[in-house]
Amino acid sequence: MTVARAVETMIPDLRIIYYGDLARTPYGSKSPETIIEYSVHNTEFLINQGAQVIIIACNSAASVASEVLRQNFNLPIFEVISPAVDRAVTTTHSGNIGVIGTRATIRSEIYDRKIKQVAPELKVFSKACPLLVPLVEEGWTDARETKMILRKYLAPLKQKQIDTLVLGCTHYPLLKDLIQHRMGKNRVRLIDSSVEVALTLQTYLQENPQFYETLQNGDVNRYFVSDTTKAAISTAEKIFGRPIDLIKV
Amino acid sequence: MTVARAVETMIPDLRIIYYGDLARTPYGSKSPETIIEYSVHNTEFLINQGAQVIIIACNSAASVASEVLRQNFNLPIFEVISPAVDRAVTTTHSGNIGVIGTRATIRSEIYDRKIKQVAPELKVFSKACPLLVPLVEEGWTDARETKMILRKYLAPLKQKQIDTLVLGCTHYPLLKDLIQHRMGKNRVRLIDSSVEVALTLQTYLQENPQFYETLQNGDVNRYFVSDTTKAAISTAEKIFGRPIDLIKV
Repeated sequence: MTVARAVETMIPDLRIIYYGDLARTPYGSKSPETIIEYSVHNTEFLINQGAQVIIIACNSAASVASEVLRQNFNLPIFEVISPAVDRAVTTTHSGNIGVIGTRATIRSEIYDRKIKQVAPELKVFSKACPLLVPLVEEGWTDARETKMILRKYLAPLKQKQIDTLVLGCTHYPLLKDLIQHRMGKNRVRLIDSSVEVALTLQTYLQENPQFYETLQNGDVNRYFVSDTTKAAISTAEKIFGRPIDLIKV
Repeated sequence: MTVARAVETMIPDLRIIYYGDLARTPYGSKSPETIIEYSVHNTEFLINQGAQVIIIACNSAASVASEVLRQNFNLPIFEVISPAVDRAVTTTHSGNIGVIGTRATIRSEIYDRKIKQVAPELKVFSKACPLLVPLVEEGWTDARETKMILRKYLAPLKQKQIDTLVLGCTHYPLLKDLIQHRMGKNRVRLIDSSVEVALTLQTYLQENPQFYETLQNGDVNRYFVSDTTKAAISTAEKIFGRPIDLIKV
């Protein structure tokens, strides 16, 4: 949802078809095989709904399923990792980059590999933070308990003198202020993978206007989900700043 | 797994067929419709594997899917809620019973209804604790952060002077010591829904020996799962006190 929100903000008239697999969330604690199976299914759904360009708006899915999806589907596929990698590489001065994400994302080591492909001299320090997604979904985005858990998760990264920290999970923008405060306002620059992929898409659409299908008069973006709960509806409202009509499929 | 472990401990030669839907876990944050759909599927799987008696070993599934499963499947179906309710009702002296569980379980109000069916004069105080499952799955069963979060969740129940607290989620036995300590050792009696359903099954099998299919020489209990991750393997080992061969299906 943070990716859909970033895209909507930057390209307001773009026609967005969203699918959130809320019935089977979270992906970050699943095995690669299961994440791939679900990602293929989700992509098929979006294509059947008329999608011409796909964004894998989940770092866990992007980290293990991007290659399979590109092999299986013949349309442009963006994902949240590469744009964040590019931004991190051009942002760091110290050469020490931190990455936080779910267990699936961190275990895949995709950020390490992609950063070192571009700039082998950089050092990457990663930390899996499995509790941050449930904390966000509980709505504790400013709770004392969340601050304590962040302190514990971020301590090893603080020690490594990183100057750039990739928020490698699309839930983490909701904790941006707490993370920024914990890492030091002027010491560490946060890279938001949701914003970076939206920027990349914007550039791509300028160069490939044939994919730029716009909302017509009265049209709205469609937000499909595999499950609806009060917590999801309230998180959606928090992210978009307005009520969102989630369509259960 | 805590239910399978309790059954195994109390009825060691019983043939157990376990199915853990780890790919789609946790159920506690899903809608009733989705939980019912998955529970029907899981029950079909167990019956196809030869199960003659079903235990719904998850409070979230039991709270919303028990009736549908009993209507759809013609075999004895046990669940973790009724035995815990019976025990709580006979345990309380003050008449104030607390219940903790996932969001799905607490929202269903099943414990309130079932307790009041048996003893309308009792008072039931419930509290959803959505972060406890992820804390257990992160392995933080003795962490300072877990203690703080428990303090927050349990504070309203402490105020109500309960003398009995139902652990209405099969993950919570792993936090039993912390919860007992927080609620006061001699003030509050904890009811473990995993243990209670195993006791109920034991009585039932004594009365209905035709369902008591025992392990034969060399036979082992079978533990099927829909996903395997390192975290799941390590939790299984913690619960059973030995490595468990999880069969991915």
